[in-house]
Amino acid sequence: MRLTAEQLARFDRDGYLFFPSLFTPEEVKVLTDEVPRLYAVRRPENVREKGSDAVRTNFAAHLYSEPFARLARHPRMIDPVVQVFDEAVYMHQFKINGKMAFDGDVWQWHQDYGTWVNDDLMPEARAMNVAIFLDEVNEFNGPLMFIPGSHKQGVIPAGHDTSTTSYPLWTIDKDTIAQLVAQGGIVAPKGPAGSMILFHGCLVHASTSNLSPWNRVSVYLSLCAVSNHIRRFKRPEYIAHRDFTPIATLPDDCLLRPYPVDLPWKDGTPESAYETGKAAA
Amino acid sequence: MRLTAEQLARFDRDGYLFFPSLFTPEEVKVLTDEVPRLYAVRRPENVREKGSDAVRTNFAAHLYSEPFARLARHPRMIDPVVQVFDEAVYMHQFKINGKMAFDGDVWQWHQDYGTWVNDDLMPEARAMNVAIFLDEVNEFNGPLMFIPGSHKQGVIPAGHDTSTTSYPLWTIDKDTIAQLVAQGGIVAPKGPAGSMILFHGCLVHASTSNLSPWNRVSVYLSLCAVSNHIRRFKRPEYIAHRDFTPIATLPDDCLLRPYPVDLPWKDGTPESAYETGKAAA
Repeated sequence: MRLTAEQLARFDRDGYLFFPSLFTPEEVKVLTDEVPRLYAVRRPENVREKGSDAVRTNFAAHLYSEPFARLARHPRMIDPVVQVFDEAVYMHQFKINGKMAFDGDVWQWHQDYGTWVNDDLMPEARAMNVAIFLDEVNEFNGPLMFIPGSHKQGVIPAGHDTSTTSYPLWTIDKDTIAQLVAQGGIVAPKGPAGSMILFHGCLVHASTSNLSPWNRVSVYLSLCAVSNHIRRFKRPEYIAHRDFTPIATLPDDCLLRPYPVDLPWKDGTPESAYETGKAAA
Repeated sequence: MRLTAEQLARFDRDGYLFFPSLFTPEEVKVLTDEVPRLYAVRRPENVREKGSDAVRTNFAAHLYSEPFARLARHPRMIDPVVQVFDEAVYMHQFKINGKMAFDGDVWQWHQDYGTWVNDDLMPEARAMNVAIFLDEVNEFNGPLMFIPGSHKQGVIPAGHDTSTTSYPLWTIDKDTIAQLVAQGGIVAPKGPAGSMILFHGCLVHASTSNLSPWNRVSVYLSLCAVSNHIRRFKRPEYIAHRDFTPIATLPDDCLLRPYPVDLPWKDGTPESAYETGKAAA
């Protein structure tokens, strides 16, 4: 899968690209069948919603779940990102966000690279966000909202919001959002399960609460150019990974056939993955 | 303005009717120009959002604001409701809901008639909800969501939610919502400022938070058939009105010309309007 010149120009201008139905229902089912088991586990990798037992985000499943380990090596996702950066990539972060029916709470306006540079000392915004829909995303179940073109601002000053939801986030003030929206508007790509979005690490995004009876589970992962690896291990390893090995892709049918994958955390997360405040090796 | 047989059949089936751009921008401006003054006042009629100073809902402006007093007598709104009930109507409740940019919080799934019958002892669901958009309503600023056909269920058991937001509400449980949505889906009428929705007192509705930089101020009022007036004054009068006088409409240009209107609370809300727990006279 090669991005066209038109797609590359659009990514540069808008800060995102949307690929509806990139994965088939059969491929998605392999992933969604695994989610209840992952969400049921009581481990720090499962962050739950404020005032509810619903999972808000699950971290690092690609290290202990075979279907997600194969997704993490999928050429339909990896190849275009390698093309954009013209360099091999490693997995910086891997999340399965719940945004569950009725309980899914808001994510305030933020940029991801702001956190990566401040907390992880990632040198440049050469890491790509990838969203893969495991459920249909519609106007009612809290779709991801983007401000097109906002990635051109680079890192925008942000304040640490530790009260709105159960997951602390560096969020952007209202005046700045109003200005950015006046220029770029808001878009919310919607589509069937199996759709994928690539979006720039500096693209400002948010999502509202999900009051609908439809789950909106999505994989959100970040692929970082290998030379741009993080320089500080301030956050736990299950959130910001420390293994900078270039991802080797599997064949295109890897979600449907049992290609072998390493599952280093299959028998439990190593204690070291919970350590914080370390300098990079 | 007469509803057609087709519109009446649609209202019966779906529980709502949508009239895009029923009021002109010039008419809407008369109303929106008045809102900041109303929202700035510190009186119990202004309920503010949890954890923010933004107004969530303002009550009874038709009794102390001239533009809204004229809106409350507008034939484009009153006549179709009188037609549906085949009877004169009085103003049961009058709100200007903020759903302000960034701060507007959710309204969980509920029916209005559930409150009217339980708290106010309103005999039947012969009261119509009216929503008039004072701002454009789009997919990003927390549009009202309906479950079409849900009004056919009559009063659905509900629990009193006093924690989610700053305004207590009788809300419906998740399993029931999931069943109703499986039958009727969800719709969210969107359109320019000046649009109007009529919806049945038993129609199940909700709205999400507004993370956008666009206010979504709407007038929500309830017109009750006069013979169906409430039988108990449990809630304060500024929330559930006790004056059952039939509304006499003004001419169609009443928002643009200074027809005289009574403003009984112009110099302050009477103490009696804050009293609760009274039996009807």
